[in-house]
Amino acid sequence: MKKHNFYAGPSIMPQFTIENTAEAIKDLDGIGLSLMEISHRSKEFDAIIKEAQALFKELLDIPDGYHVLFLGGGASTQFLMVPYNLFRNKAAYMNTGSWAKKAIKEAKLFGDVDVVASSEEDGFNYIPRNYQLPGDADYFHITSNNTISGTELKEDLDVSMPLVADMSSDIFSRPIDVSKYAIIYGGAQKNLAPAGVTFIIVKEDVLGKVDRTIPTMMDYNTHIKKESLFNTPPVVPIYSALQTLKWLKQKGGVKEMNKINNEKAGMLYEEIERNKLFRPVVQKEEDRSIMNVTFVMNEEYKDLDKEFLEFAGSKGMVGIKGHRSVGGFRASLYNALPKESVEALIAAMKEFENKKA
Amino acid sequence: MKKHNFYAGPSIMPQFTIENTAEAIKDLDGIGLSLMEISHRSKEFDAIIKEAQALFKELLDIPDGYHVLFLGGGASTQFLMVPYNLFRNKAAYMNTGSWAKKAIKEAKLFGDVDVVASSEEDGFNYIPRNYQLPGDADYFHITSNNTISGTELKEDLDVSMPLVADMSSDIFSRPIDVSKYAIIYGGAQKNLAPAGVTFIIVKEDVLGKVDRTIPTMMDYNTHIKKESLFNTPPVVPIYSALQTLKWLKQKGGVKEMNKINNEKAGMLYEEIERNKLFRPVVQKEEDRSIMNVTFVMNEEYKDLDKEFLEFAGSKGMVGIKGHRSVGGFRASLYNALPKESVEALIAAMKEFENKKA
Repeated sequence: MKKHNFYAGPSIMPQFTIENTAEAIKDLDGIGLSLMEISHRSKEFDAIIKEAQALFKELLDIPDGYHVLFLGGGASTQFLMVPYNLFRNKAAYMNTGSWAKKAIKEAKLFGDVDVVASSEEDGFNYIPRNYQLPGDADYFHITSNNTISGTELKEDLDVSMPLVADMSSDIFSRPIDVSKYAIIYGGAQKNLAPAGVTFIIVKEDVLGKVDRTIPTMMDYNTHIKKESLFNTPPVVPIYSALQTLKWLKQKGGVKEMNKINNEKAGMLYEEIERNKLFRPVVQKEEDRSIMNVTFVMNEEYKDLDKEFLEFAGSKGMVGIKGHRSVGGFRASLYNALPKESVEALIAAMKEFENKKA
Repeated sequence: MKKHNFYAGPSIMPQFTIENTAEAIKDLDGIGLSLMEISHRSKEFDAIIKEAQALFKELLDIPDGYHVLFLGGGASTQFLMVPYNLFRNKAAYMNTGSWAKKAIKEAKLFGDVDVVASSEEDGFNYIPRNYQLPGDADYFHITSNNTISGTELKEDLDVSMPLVADMSSDIFSRPIDVSKYAIIYGGAQKNLAPAGVTFIIVKEDVLGKVDRTIPTMMDYNTHIKKESLFNTPPVVPIYSALQTLKWLKQKGGVKEMNKINNEKAGMLYEEIERNKLFRPVVQKEEDRSIMNVTFVMNEEYKDLDKEFLEFAGSKGMVGIKGHRSVGGFRASLYNALPKESVEALIAAMKEFENKKA
């Protein structure tokens, strides 16, 4: 029986993506070869990656002047590639969680990093709103969704410098105004594909402004020139990404997806607030992630953590244990998670409340 | 009908790997989740990566003091990581082809690179044998198998400095004496797994000797400390690698595989030499790759290239077009390629000869 999958990532994929990928691995479109066996220079893969790039652009309404890349190495490699390609004298970063901190650490290898705002003192449980950007920074880096604490910046910022966003865990969850960003990147293993592929949306005219020699694989222009085929790309994850993009289009795209995501997250936050046992980690509604809902037991029920995890497990739920730095619970409600799974979690929370409160 | 797959990479995989991966993508061992949906921190994936590392070590008889890593980013990223981690004052490189040149290019970003031997002037059609290594180099880098020209260094060198080898296209094709190497790395998309995972065998005591601050993702110690789980690894390709390693063990391991590979390559080289239409690219038998067999039409039949490709295609063969820098043909005979495919190619060559010569 299919589990209710609340993993933070790698995470639930649409059945459409799962079934089509499994079929293609057995035999790709009846060509007598597995998807795993085709050359990345074959006409079959050329069609796959071109369609994936085109659909990616279409679904996010990406304007001209931007490239979409599919690379290996994970978002963690982007923490390094971003400063390699953009850092001249100074960079501004917002510190909203573990991933932001890792990005800041790499940028510091290149020089002066101005951390313009941080919610670290409060356990990253909110998104800073009032801060000054230094006029002389080369770019401003944000993490739009923080998977660990469960905060999310749900609007596109207007800033006077190139804006760079790590959107690993909320890409395709809502419409975004790409024109406000210089670079958007992320690991694909949440709303897009199995682990192993990293997407990068990069505005052409922000590149080429640094003096350093950029190592070949770290240079966005290397990959732009070769359309993500400078070296062998992760073929299977890119095929799966294409399936998810097709599924997303069938479902009505990011606007419709955002409506459903708001409904799913709204239901769950409502139950967390109502239920005597639980409380949300993130207080301000506007800061609450619609992708990763974090909650803990109220003080008087604190020792029931493990028991609730087991109870939810017995109802076919996986992945709701909170990150060790926050504790409690985290339910990741990515695009592919059906409403029924959220309803099942809510029912389990109610049932557990009736037994314990 | 299954094709005869001679692609240079991504390339043929064992049916065992294909079928088990397709099944696991539908549902991993009946747990109610797809392989694509499990967390890299789950007990299921922990078992997968640990078993893959253990089997990898067992099959190559890797001594204590070495780590096996499975990362993203491809061998092209290793061209950069090797000097980041080992380069202090000078490095020695052997130039045996396009991939070696790319490795040399990245090393030059770090300082003085001594290219101790090169076969470039002769189109990379042999492996240099007589050269002097500078006593003051920090390491010596070789490419053991050159997929484009079809040369291969089939023995493990004895050198007086750390030896680093790119074995992307011949790993697991023969027994190797790992103790002679400091680092062995490669993209997995030939003898191991679908594209998207890079293996690195690294000797612990060669690390930690450089003064520079190594970026987090470029530092082998980052990944050693976290056992390849510092960031999300490519889950599906690692699962497939485990299947291939299991298959390899069933087949008798690298010693038995080497015997079969020598038979397969021997048959094909023999036919190339015998057949009036063709001649081998690599003259010296000791330099001929058993993984990538390159051959061209003899002068008087030169204009038959395209026709032979079409003829082979009509017999269900894919991937035998030579790399544009060499021309002619290349048949990649990786571990998973059955002898029957080599026999089919030989039969096609004979039939074409009867029609044309």
